[in-house]
This record gives sequence, structure tokens and C-alpha cells, in this order.
Amino acid sequence: MNFTPSNPDFATVVQASFARQGLMRMMGATLDRVEPGVVDISMPYSENLTQQHSFMHAAAITAIADTASGYAALSLMPAGSEVLTIELKVNLLRPAAGTHFVAEGRVIKPGKTITVSRADVFARADDGVPTLVATLTATMIMQAGKKN
Amino acid sequence: MNFTPSNPDFATVVQASFARQGLMRMMGATLDRVEPGVVDISMPYSENLTQQHSFMHAAAITAIADTASGYAALSLMPAGSEVLTIELKVNLLRPAAGTHFVAEGRVIKPGKTITVSRADVFARADDGVPTLVATLTATMIMQAGKKN
Amino acid sequence: MNFTPSNPDFATVVQASFARQGLMRMMGATLDRVEPGVVDISMPYSENLTQQHSFMHAAAITAIADTASGYAALSLMPAGSEVLTIELKVNLLRPAAGTHFVAEGRVIKPGKTITVSRADVFARADDGVPTLVATLTATMIMQAGKKN
Amino acid sequence: MNFTPSNPDFATVVQASFARQGLMRMMGATLDRVEPGVVDISMPYSENLTQQHSFMHAAAITAIADTASGYAALSLMPAGSEVLTIELKVNLLRPAAGTHFVAEGRVIKPGKTITVSRADVFARADDGVPTLVATLTATMIMQAGKKN
Repeated sequence: MNFTPSNPDFATVVQASFARQGLMRMMGATLDRVEPGVVDISMPYSENLTQQHSFMHAAAITAIADTASGYAALSLMPAGSEVLTIELKVNLLRPAAGTHFVAEGRVIKPGKTITVSRADVFARADDGVPTLVATLTATMIMQAGKKN
Repeated sequence: MNFTPSNPDFATVVQASFARQGLMRMMGATLDRVEPGVVDISMPYSENLTQQHSFMHAAAITAIADTASGYAALSLMPAGSEVLTIELKVNLLRPAAGTHFVAEGRVIKPGKTITVSRADVFARADDGVPTLVATLTATMIMQAGKKN
Repeated sequence: MNFTPSNPDFATVVQASFARQGLMRMMGATLDRVEPGVVDISMPYSENLTQQHSFMHAAAITAIADTASGYAALSLMPAGSEVLTIELKVNLLRPAAGTHFVAEGRVIKPGKTITVSRADVFARADDGVPTLVATLTATMIMQAGKKN
Repeated sequence: MNFTPSNPDFATVVQASFARQGLMRMMGATLDRVEPGVVDISMPYSENLTQQHSFMHAAAITAIADTASGYAALSLMPAGSEVLTIELKVNLLRPAAGTHFVAEGRVIKPGKTITVSRADVFARADDGVPTLVATLTATMIMQAGKKN
């Protein structure tokens, strides 16, 4: 699907908001792609983010998937908007083993108040073959910006 | 509901598994209660775990909710079992503002292969009044232990 | 939780809306309880609503759970409001075997735009002992009524 | 994705199971496509399946989406298997208005015990343009067949 952003500066808005996220910074996550309705975020493997079997924790996978979905939604919202996740659902398909993890956030249905988006998370290993490890669906709500 | 654990050492099993989670350690999370089908986990507020508005990130809230739900499930499994989350769904009800956050994991339906559990997450502020900020439902799968 | 309805005629509103649902009528469902934030709906077993093993279909269980949750939400909304489900998630805990099925819808978090509610569905057999067969969480959106 | 079925008679298995579903028969649903990991199911609009605004009820949309997802999963299972939905999540994106509704079930991740699948539901009107009205993700469990 091709979406037309209502704010021409959407990429700057997404980058600035991403930069304020303490969790993304702590995880070493980076914003790899910002297009209308499309946001990719990646992070490296870290022992600080593991569950009991040394795989990446479901919540770390959820973190990049939720954030990519939310910013995919924000990229289509009017200037001054904020985005909040009201619910998310993630299916963990395979153990999150790899050196890097990429969440591909995509808007499924934009809306004035509610936007639904999805993110697939892929694990990459040294051989470079990506494996789908999780898929998330989330409902985002727009919070209107303050009028100056 | 009252559950009878099949492994009398369930609390030791849960504590040992929790101690192996890099993410829980990094977040400063603690295991506050372990009973059959019941696990509470708490964590303090940290700037390292925030989203763009300085509230705790949905994924940090999900982290303790998922972990409490998973260990509530593990507490009822036979000796030698491992637990894996296959899917989780969380509704974020209010901004996660507070000094501490407690996830109360409870088993809804134990099973031989599949266990369904839930966790409510409460924020606590200095005045001590807890506020429900999120509710999670998760499906857990048992992985049978190795026979010696 | 005790909720105060903003519309004193909430029960009449819920009953009138329920009566307009073709699906509820076809399924023989009845509205058994309407209180602020609380709605129970029941239906009898019917061969018309089965899946391939002659148990009630997941969608029939979802139907009463979604409807009970939605009307629990509507019971707290201002006069003239309509309610729509924007997403629902249901865990099917046991085969839906029984003579009657009751969905207990309860509001978890009311809101001006978004309300989150839950429904547990119990199967009843001739011996009268209810069994929890499903639990649903749903996000409802309020649609403001037309001003006259 | 291309999947290889383990049972060459998968289409017959799916058709026979579909024919036993009272709910599908009552709704006038038809099985339009059965390929490995792929099942489409459609149904016509009916007043018997409406919610209070005369659109198709969320549960009717869920019925074809869940069934298409479940049979997409069953199509990849060994001979003699049965499939059960353990949980489903559906986002209702637009009012379900139209003359026909088609659920496109697709397997995301097959597995020995657990299969995750998805279904998109499209509404069609007289002008023939399909509109995405819902998207569902579901977790299916295989029940092994009886050995003779």
C-alpha cells in the first residue's frame, strides 16, 4: 500500500521522537528506514536483553516491534500529533537467536483517531539469512498536538 | 483458584530460571512472590526504560507482565520443564507513570502442553496508591525436561 | 469495581441495541443482566452453531463474549453514544461442551473514547456446574451520538 | 511462502471437516480455495448475522476468518490430525458492509504441535471492489489422529 503523509516533515518527527526513547537507546536500537506508513528498527544481540535460555527476551523483541509499528503510524499523522499504543499482540514464532534483529513496522489501516499496524521481526545470523521470529499487531491512538 | 503444584520444588525452579534472565537483571526486577500459579514481579522506574514521553515503555511493562505470567505457568509444571511464551496480548490502560511497577501473574487454565495465564500491572507512586496500567493475557507452552 | 453510569437510562439503551442484533436473535441469546459496567448474555447449545466436532464454534462463543463486553462498555457511555469493537482477543480454554453458555462482560477501564472490557464464558451442563471455556479481552470505541 | 503438505489428501480432509460445521452451513459459507497452507472461505450478507447497525457482526467476520485460518493450518498436518483454535485476535478495521465477505487464511508458521496462521477478511459490494474489513491472527494446535 502507498500512503500519502499529511505532514511533509514526518521523518524528522519520527527521528526526534525515537531519539527521546530511553529504552531504544539502552538497547542500542537504530531507526533504519522511515517512509510513509513504513518504519524499520534494528538492534544487536545483547546479554542484557535475554531470557533464561540466552535467547532475546520476548519483551525485547516486542520493544522493537511495538516501536516500529507505532512510528509507522505516527508517520501518517498530522503535524504536532503524538502516538500511543493502546494494545499489542505478538506471536513468538521461533526462538530469537541471532546477532541482529530487525522489526519491519507497516500500517495496515490508518485512521483519524485509531491506526492499526503490524510488525514482523526477523533474526539475522552471520550467514545473513533472515528468519521470521515474531509477528505483532497493534492498535495505536493519535493524540492531537497543542495548538500554539 | 487453588492449584496443586506437581513439583514440590517449584519455587526453587522459578527462582533459578529468573536469575538467568539478563533482561530482568538489567531492569532491576525482583521476584516478590512465588506460589502455585501465582508470581509477582516488580521493578523500579528507570530512564533507561522509557518511551518518548518519559513514561515506562510498553515493552518494559510487557517484560514484567510476560515474565510473571510465564513463571506462574512454570510453577505448576512437572520437574525439569521449561516454559516458553508462544503469544501475548497486552492492553495498555493508562500511562505507566510511577516509582515502582508490579506485575501480578496468575494462571487461568493450566494444561499438560498449553497453559494460559494473565498478569495485571500496577504502578505505584509515593502516595502508595496502586493504579492498574496494563493487563496481559499469554499462552505458554511447556517444554519437557530431559530424562536422566 | 463500582462504576457510576453517566446515562441513568443505560439499561434501556443496552436492551434496545441488543434487540436490533440479528445475530443474537438467531442464536437465541438473551440479555440476563445489565448493570453499570456489567452485562451477562447467555445462549443455548444449538447444532447450527457447531464446529466440526459438534462443540460450539469458537465464533459463537466469541459472539456472546464480544457482545457482553461491548454492552458492558456502552452501559457507561453518555446518552446517544454507540459502541463499536475495534479489536478482540479470545483464549479458548476448553471445548465448548454444555447445554447453555453464559458470557460475563465486565469493564476493566472506561474512557472517554476507548473502553477496555473483558468477558469470561462459562459452559453449563445438566449437573449445573459451570466451567470456564473462554476468556476475551476487547477494545471498544465510543461513537458520539448525533446532537438534535 | 510455499508449503509442502504432509498428507496428499489434505484437500479432502479439509472439505470433509468443513462440511461437518453446523455454523458454516447455517451462515451459507463456502470453501472457495484449498491449497497447502492456504484456505479461502466466503459468505453472503445475511440479516441473521448482523449487529445493531445492520453491519455483519464482528463474530460472523471472526467465524470465517477463524475457520479459514484453522483449515489453512490443517492442510499442512499429517493424515488423521484434527485442528483446534487455542486463541485468536482480530482487528476490525472498517464496518463490515457489503454483499459478500471473503476470508483469506494463510499459514505464517507451521509446526509439529503449534501452527500460527492469519486471515484477512474482505468485503465485496456490487461494484466488485474488495475492502479489507478485518485481520485475524490465530494459534492452532494439532491433535494427533487415532492409530488404528
